Amino acid sequence: MEKRKLIFISNDDGIDAKGLYSLIEIAKKFGDVFVVAPEDGQSGMSHSISLAKPLRVRYLKNSPELTICAVPGTPADCVKLAVNQLLPAKPDIMLSGINHGSNAAVSVVYSGTMGAAIEASLYGIPSIGFSLLDHSPEADFTIPEKFAAKVIESVLGEGLPYQVALNINYPKINISDFKGYRICKQTPGLWSEKFDKRIDPYGREYYWLTGSFLNAEPDNDETDEWALKNNYASIVPVKIDFTDYNTITNLKKRNI
Amino acid sequence: MEKRKLIFISNDDGIDAKGLYSLIEIAKKFGDVFVVAPEDGQSGMSHSISLAKPLRVRYLKNSPELTICAVPGTPADCVKLAVNQLLPAKPDIMLSGINHGSNAAVSVVYSGTMGAAIEASLYGIPSIGFSLLDHSPEADFTIPEKFAAKVIESVLGEGLPYQVALNINYPKINISDFKGYRICKQTPGLWSEKFDKRIDPYGREYYWLTGSFLNAEPDNDETDEWALKNNYASIVPVKIDFTDYNTITNLKKRNI
Repeated sequence: MEKRKLIFISNDDGIDAKGLYSLIEIAKKFGDVFVVAPEDGQSGMSHSISLAKPLRVRYLKNSPELTICAVPGTPADCVKLAVNQLLPAKPDIMLSGINHGSNAAVSVVYSGTMGAAIEASLYGIPSIGFSLLDHSPEADFTIPEKFAAKVIESVLGEGLPYQVALNINYPKINISDFKGYRICKQTPGLWSEKFDKRIDPYGREYYWLTGSFLNAEPDNDETDEWALKNNYASIVPVKIDFTDYNTITNLKKRNI
Repeated sequence: MEKRKLIFISNDDGIDAKGLYSLIEIAKKFGDVFVVAPEDGQSGMSHSISLAKPLRVRYLKNSPELTICAVPGTPADCVKLAVNQLLPAKPDIMLSGINHGSNAAVSVVYSGTMGAAIEASLYGIPSIGFSLLDHSPEADFTIPEKFAAKVIESVLGEGLPYQVALNINYPKINISDFKGYRICKQTPGLWSEKFDKRIDPYGREYYWLTGSFLNAEPDNDETDEWALKNNYASIVPVKIDFTDYNTITNLKKRNI
């Protein structure tokens, strides 16, 4: 008899997020599910880790088929603690999300969902981050609920290259308009921020971060933003090597 | 008369760190200095941003030659607020650090110092993150104090490619043993964590994160870890495109 698969799940919207339970339901069909998720919402926490405070573990559910723990830390903390301390074995796959909101383009850098998936991939675990382009706590996860299994099957069957994770984003559209998956590259561009300056009831200034994404290649059909605008779900394979190899040659010519 | 340069500085060790004031002294020779740094230590905060809380600004010094503000946020928050709201003009260069501790190899992913430098580079500002391989609050910054100016001069004079930042690490050695700069790539590998499990005075378990870096290419003299072990300062040009282009071809062949 084949050994049951072990599916490790985390997220950045925290232990109470609707998208987490949507992902647990999807994962259950593939084997035993072990969830280690942040106690609180950790959107925008990127790849941060807790160096100045210790971590604790609260078990909400503890059975062989489904374990759910909450940790008062970041998504990357949850992954490190799970892999090194909590999981009963090395998982066959790691799933992160489903995030409420986009992690396409440069948002991958700020994303706690992808911070968790990338962290798991560093340990050699095939990892997938799932996001839906809907920030609402009551977002409708029908499309990933129907189509995520296909990618999970492929990754469980054929694996992923060492230390590569997938960043998958689903458009917010009717399922009848959904065109399927498209393999993409990360859209180049940047966030254009506008701070909303306000005065508190005590007369002191404060600022709220707001902004919009400036797409540097809006017509490039190889990008994730293009795919999402055209009713596809985008799949970007991601790997953590920040080195800009082109610039190495340039710098070596300088007198530094 | 040439316009005075505007040097923007941030860090992740916070407004009171010794390394910040070391960097301010280095920068003063090049023009007006504008510092926006976190109120508290933000080591390990990566590229995280504050979405759930507003930001405030506390001015410690405010003169044309030197402005110093503290912001109760992350390093990337400081950069976003500075660039969009606080700086009198687009800076000629952004300097981050000097960090107390290494940001070589995969530590670049967790680093708040590099989170700030990369964030500034996304706005098209030539940016450099400086780190010294010494965690001590009283670390000796003699080597960067003597040699950082050379790189700053090169970047002010010749610039950097769009959205590229430099990740510079200095070894903890006697200055007489220092061999100069070496252009490198990010060392591949991963952190091997070990959680230190303890019991608090109330009988509850908690965990401290500890670990060591496993170098996947210890003998490769093109890596930053090799350079640092051999008494060089490492310079890695970094750029934020997480896409793993090799894997795109692989995935396109699959039935997803």
